[in-house]
Amino acid sequence: MDRHSHQPIKKVAITGGTHGNELTGIHLVRAFQSDPRRVERESFETVPMLTNIGAIERVTRYVDKDLNRTFSLSALEDYSGTAYEDALSKVINQRLGPKGAGETAIDLVVDLHTTTSDMGLSLVLSTTDPLSWQIAAYVKEKMPEVNIFRWKGDTGDVSFVSSIPPHGLTIEVGPIPQGVLRADMFFGTERVVQTILDYIEAYNRGEVDFYTEVEIYDHVALVDYPRTEQGEITAMLHPDIQDNGYVRIEKGDPLFVTLEGKTVPYEGDEPRYVLFANEAAYYEKGFALCLTDKKSIAL
Amino acid sequence: MDRHSHQPIKKVAITGGTHGNELTGIHLVRAFQSDPRRVERESFETVPMLTNIGAIERVTRYVDKDLNRTFSLSALEDYSGTAYEDALSKVINQRLGPKGAGETAIDLVVDLHTTTSDMGLSLVLSTTDPLSWQIAAYVKEKMPEVNIFRWKGDTGDVSFVSSIPPHGLTIEVGPIPQGVLRADMFFGTERVVQTILDYIEAYNRGEVDFYTEVEIYDHVALVDYPRTEQGEITAMLHPDIQDNGYVRIEKGDPLFVTLEGKTVPYEGDEPRYVLFANEAAYYEKGFALCLTDKKSIAL
Repeated sequence: MDRHSHQPIKKVAITGGTHGNELTGIHLVRAFQSDPRRVERESFETVPMLTNIGAIERVTRYVDKDLNRTFSLSALEDYSGTAYEDALSKVINQRLGPKGAGETAIDLVVDLHTTTSDMGLSLVLSTTDPLSWQIAAYVKEKMPEVNIFRWKGDTGDVSFVSSIPPHGLTIEVGPIPQGVLRADMFFGTERVVQTILDYIEAYNRGEVDFYTEVEIYDHVALVDYPRTEQGEITAMLHPDIQDNGYVRIEKGDPLFVTLEGKTVPYEGDEPRYVLFANEAAYYEKGFALCLTDKKSIAL
Repeated sequence: MDRHSHQPIKKVAITGGTHGNELTGIHLVRAFQSDPRRVERESFETVPMLTNIGAIERVTRYVDKDLNRTFSLSALEDYSGTAYEDALSKVINQRLGPKGAGETAIDLVVDLHTTTSDMGLSLVLSTTDPLSWQIAAYVKEKMPEVNIFRWKGDTGDVSFVSSIPPHGLTIEVGPIPQGVLRADMFFGTERVVQTILDYIEAYNRGEVDFYTEVEIYDHVALVDYPRTEQGEITAMLHPDIQDNGYVRIEKGDPLFVTLEGKTVPYEGDEPRYVLFANEAAYYEKGFALCLTDKKSIAL
């Protein structure tokens, strides 16, 4: 970001229910819709919006496929898909984008998620957009308990809701089961949202500091559970990893424990930090955890 | 139970996946199927069995309706239902029962469940069968950390899987999200199963003590979340209750917190103990928690 540019942010969307069984964002959006003053700021408009309304109604992650993997430019230009989410993604792209257009309906989106993994309060960024990273650095300064994860699961053409407008971040909080509300996670998520809105207000007034670096957990690799040839899981997360978000592991440390009780160690040569361990929705995607590097990056 | 009767137990079923997204029981049953010696005893046969195989395949609680509410005698005699579980329940009744018959395929069933609620390791009994209660008392003696919950949600005609053969218990462990395995819950559930099998082996040999009383949590009432007239939840479990299974509450203690942050107190005149607080599957059933009395009952 050019530290002297101050293209103002006019419209911010707070989106919930991109996964229909992650109740925290859904109920937070509904609370903001009932009382818009709760997210009101002077210099911009805040739009609380539910995204996967079909999945929300069913209290399932999705109806036919993961909505949060349908917003790549190539997917948005493909009209052949028959899934509910293939249609819905075009509708949401109109309401938040269109993605890649010079003029978009929304300038910045904050997409609200939860996870069964011990991620605490976290931000997930999959963008190189400088403003999104300045926001993340501000949140980290104001709320040091928040961790920042840089996702590289997509290569280039990012498919998240947060990738539709020019600026976007995802909030991930956990551990919390699917289909459940927890007061601590609910109000914790709101604190992150309010901090982001505070930054945007200050940014619009030209009253922000420019951050030159921030500490992140950087995506290195996804690791699956040990499985049989038929795909059945044969081991679980080791208790040293479970409930121990952001834990550092090195070669030989316990990683899994088989259904018979045998420990399976981490075999990598490099020490890593473990994120997104034991997220329910990732069993079908085929990964048990994400290995990351902890580093400071220049902004 | 007549303490001198020793009608031997010949066949014990360990059932998992009655709810298809409760992975602990499913994987424990599969582990027992792969290595039957793990649950082998000299005096009886152990049959590990998956029940709602359609829901297991989908990783959902059920396909069309809750299988664990389909085993009342009246439901089993009704052939008009079109749900998957209406058909499946008749099949399972043949394999474990038939319920109410003088001769049943299985003598005793242990049905394995998990909950998102902080229930720890628990047994749920909905029967007056003396042998089932002797087993529960034995488990409580050997594993004092296990709590016993007497369920009275059904009136008379019990509809659980555990009600099909003459003798039956349900194991409930939590907190654990739906769709997730945890090593502690997995091996904790197995410890309870092994303890039950140990009792049955001793019982068949006539080597058991007769318990005359046991401490239980006795079902008093189900309490729903505060909701709008349209059924939308307006409050969450208060943090004093969340993660605090079996907590004693009295009039004026915090029970819920609204989405705006206002505390809603418990209004009952009688002190109670809170169980099954914040179970994901009970949002749709319309209850947030179960109020119970803690008491010692005569066996």
